[in-house]
Amino acid sequence: MTNPIRVTIWNEGWHEKNEERIRAVYPQGIHAAIAEGLDDPRIEVQTATFFDPDLGLTDEVLASTDVLFWWGHVVHRDVPDELVNRIQARVLDGMGLVVLHSGHHSKIFQRLMGTSCNLSWREHEGGERERVWCLDPAHPVAEGCPEFIEIPRSEMYGEPFDIPQPDRLVFVSWVEGGEVFRSGCCYHRGRGRIFYFSPGHEAFPIYYQPEIRRVLTNAALWCAPLHESGVRLVNRHRPEPLSPIAAGPGA
Amino acid sequence: MTNPIRVTIWNEGWHEKNEERIRAVYPQGIHAAIAEGLDDPRIEVQTATFFDPDLGLTDEVLASTDVLFWWGHVVHRDVPDELVNRIQARVLDGMGLVVLHSGHHSKIFQRLMGTSCNLSWREHEGGERERVWCLDPAHPVAEGCPEFIEIPRSEMYGEPFDIPQPDRLVFVSWVEGGEVFRSGCCYHRGRGRIFYFSPGHEAFPIYYQPEIRRVLTNAALWCAPLHESGVRLVNRHRPEPLSPIAAGPGA
Amino acid sequence: MTNPIRVTIWNEGWHEKNEERIRAVYPQGIHAAIAEGLDDPRIEVQTATFFDPDLGLTDEVLASTDVLFWWGHVVHRDVPDELVNRIQARVLDGMGLVVLHSGHHSKIFQRLMGTSCNLSWREHEGGERERVWCLDPAHPVAEGCPEFIEIPRSEMYGEPFDIPQPDRLVFVSWVEGGEVFRSGCCYHRGRGRIFYFSPGHEAFPIYYQPEIRRVLTNAALWCAPLHESGVRLVNRHRPEPLSPIAAGPGA
Amino acid sequence: MTNPIRVTIWNEGWHEKNEERIRAVYPQGIHAAIAEGLDDPRIEVQTATFFDPDLGLTDEVLASTDVLFWWGHVVHRDVPDELVNRIQARVLDGMGLVVLHSGHHSKIFQRLMGTSCNLSWREHEGGERERVWCLDPAHPVAEGCPEFIEIPRSEMYGEPFDIPQPDRLVFVSWVEGGEVFRSGCCYHRGRGRIFYFSPGHEAFPIYYQPEIRRVLTNAALWCAPLHESGVRLVNRHRPEPLSPIAAGPGA
Repeated sequence: MTNPIRVTIWNEGWHEKNEERIRAVYPQGIHAAIAEGLDDPRIEVQTATFFDPDLGLTDEVLASTDVLFWWGHVVHRDVPDELVNRIQARVLDGMGLVVLHSGHHSKIFQRLMGTSCNLSWREHEGGERERVWCLDPAHPVAEGCPEFIEIPRSEMYGEPFDIPQPDRLVFVSWVEGGEVFRSGCCYHRGRGRIFYFSPGHEAFPIYYQPEIRRVLTNAALWCAPLHESGVRLVNRHRPEPLSPIAAGPGA
Repeated sequence: MTNPIRVTIWNEGWHEKNEERIRAVYPQGIHAAIAEGLDDPRIEVQTATFFDPDLGLTDEVLASTDVLFWWGHVVHRDVPDELVNRIQARVLDGMGLVVLHSGHHSKIFQRLMGTSCNLSWREHEGGERERVWCLDPAHPVAEGCPEFIEIPRSEMYGEPFDIPQPDRLVFVSWVEGGEVFRSGCCYHRGRGRIFYFSPGHEAFPIYYQPEIRRVLTNAALWCAPLHESGVRLVNRHRPEPLSPIAAGPGA
Repeated sequence: MTNPIRVTIWNEGWHEKNEERIRAVYPQGIHAAIAEGLDDPRIEVQTATFFDPDLGLTDEVLASTDVLFWWGHVVHRDVPDELVNRIQARVLDGMGLVVLHSGHHSKIFQRLMGTSCNLSWREHEGGERERVWCLDPAHPVAEGCPEFIEIPRSEMYGEPFDIPQPDRLVFVSWVEGGEVFRSGCCYHRGRGRIFYFSPGHEAFPIYYQPEIRRVLTNAALWCAPLHESGVRLVNRHRPEPLSPIAAGPGA
Repeated sequence: MTNPIRVTIWNEGWHEKNEERIRAVYPQGIHAAIAEGLDDPRIEVQTATFFDPDLGLTDEVLASTDVLFWWGHVVHRDVPDELVNRIQARVLDGMGLVVLHSGHHSKIFQRLMGTSCNLSWREHEGGERERVWCLDPAHPVAEGCPEFIEIPRSEMYGEPFDIPQPDRLVFVSWVEGGEVFRSGCCYHRGRGRIFYFSPGHEAFPIYYQPEIRRVLTNAALWCAPLHESGVRLVNRHRPEPLSPIAAGPGA
């Protein structure tokens, strides 16, 4: 594991740029609030947005990123396919990926899941209460979590959520208006680890909550590649057998 | 479940068309040998190949297909993306998919898995012995299977295989030259079921073996959509809460 | 699969025998209400209770049972270990098991799970609303289910639930008082299938609800052994190798 | 995580005590060879055997053990149930457990799996070659592993192996005589982590191989409880709702 872990937080940044009410919540951008929350000596953070040259994600940036955070919503379709290809390749080779909230419909998440990632949703005026229940308190991403994290004002995301069954399901949310949602899901794809975490609607100050920041910090640590050693998942031609092959039935 | 189950076997057909030694093994094409093997009153079969108009997979064909079999190798990259999109959408809406042998590198399998699907391989002159061990003898796709299926001459496929961990791992193969391989893997994606089965190299008469035909028949039955009832996995806006939402903290 | 499927519904029967308020809800016993709900020509039902000789579960009964339903609560510790041994052996050999509600703490469920099966709970005067959300609408046990099943009055069961991660998680419940719970969980153990379904508190008429009866009927069909063919999961000595073993390094 | 991790290696010790040919391979006992292999500054090792008072596993020992290794074979049935109860409780509360080779039939492994853990086996005169293939090279227990670990002389363990499907399947073995086996399996039960690793027949010097020792060291690190914080998986009565409950339908 690199020391410290190099995290790149990507945020599209559209809402903060175009909507006064969102800028009021996140004046420096959602990415800045997330970065501030990853305040841990084991982590080193940089940020990038949709409006940066090359969306801030050049080959050099990706190559030196251990864990990529992804917050997107409005411009999903404008993220170039070739960038999605490069991110996917890096994840399969070991880079961690933390997908947040409306990132469920990002190209990169759909690509890695293979499904539509559709869900139910409701944006209630003023928000509604959400309780993020921890099903697996011994899991690394749940370190330091209470029984549940209470979010006073949230947007509803509800089941059915069209994802492959998670490798580990860590959080399930209760929402005031009557739904449930798999809000914290762990996946392994190739050599990489992926964590999807649903809380984080742009209109509410969720990324300032200490418990949410704790989960994001845990997620960065859990998603970081453990080791560079070992075999790559490449296509491998092995013309010589390891053990002798008898002359075939036709011999 | 429709009765009978409507299976469409898609085979690229390139080898049989271009290579005499393959045509000698499968004079009517690999698809014809597979179709012959699905000899069960509960199943109704049609076939299609890369060389048919629209690759034989129009919207009408897909809409009336309960389970699609896929054998491809040489022309993976020539299958149009829009067809891959349509197949993926049908699988997520409930169509079963049976991916065979070198189909591991097909666009549709990579799309649904989200990974590279890379593996190790060796084509030994005359082939080598493979034993397909059944790990889960009570599983529907293993009905009627012995402890292992012996294939006298096979191509080696070996680990590591870059796939998401299967939802159920039914078969693992031993190969004479020294490797192992997850040769029978079950997945659920959206409302659809997917079965990957690795035996079936074009140069060997594997699809004529009764035990292999039994597995393929089982796979068709298992992958068929069980029921059309119930909820679709669409994006769903539910503006009205199901339970009352208290006035928020800002109220 | 036997035709029809032979279901045995085991209910301890203590509450109905000893408490007037429960007898008012289930005058013939919980088992009778469940049996009435499995009204399907593919299913044949018998019942047994704790107060029957041998608890109604002789070797003959178990041997002729395809799927055993289990409702227990007060007398868990009084079920003899030797009976638990026999049920476990039958499940591992293919008998299905449907564990209901407070059966989470039964010896047989703990035995098959390997965990404590602890959870949180609350019995609110008059009950509280529960919505059983379906996460996997294409799953066999969800056939015919709406988006969610609403139970007007229920007892709260909440996370964390100390179970192995389910092989398939089909239902998650929302409860009015603020919790979530994995209410419909599928497992495979040995050759057998297990379904845990949490709704069914004795004080409320839940087993009369048509949607709940539909799930129980689906569960009976899904848990039934698919086929008797194939290999048993016995300890197997195979002194003769299948392929030749070279003289060892010490030779 | 405690620092260093406190590992207790339990070995029944019967073979070394009673059979000259085994003593020749492991003169200090299998436990001593394993202990020697866990040569890592992050790990602190103690050992215990069946012949120690209380089998060496008093409450004090278990309470100060982060990861328990278990090698047993001949005296499985003589391990007291009350000790098995105590070990299970510790695992569910977070202690790691590494079960080795013939430990597949130990009471504690069967207890935690809920299945028979039966398998096929063959003890070939002089042993046979085994290749332990790594399916998941990025997994913590595979750190530093090559594509496969070659064991020149081993005892055959083969499928079907009657275990719940592993949460992560890291190793699958090829054996010279023709079988395959899931040789490295990860489980989560309660707050604890379990790793089963099959290589290690008493008659062959397998625990002296550096690659095997590397896997065991990795396993100790992976199984160690990550954090003591967070919720315990106890039975929890929460009489007061978190959110208001409306007066019921009967009100």
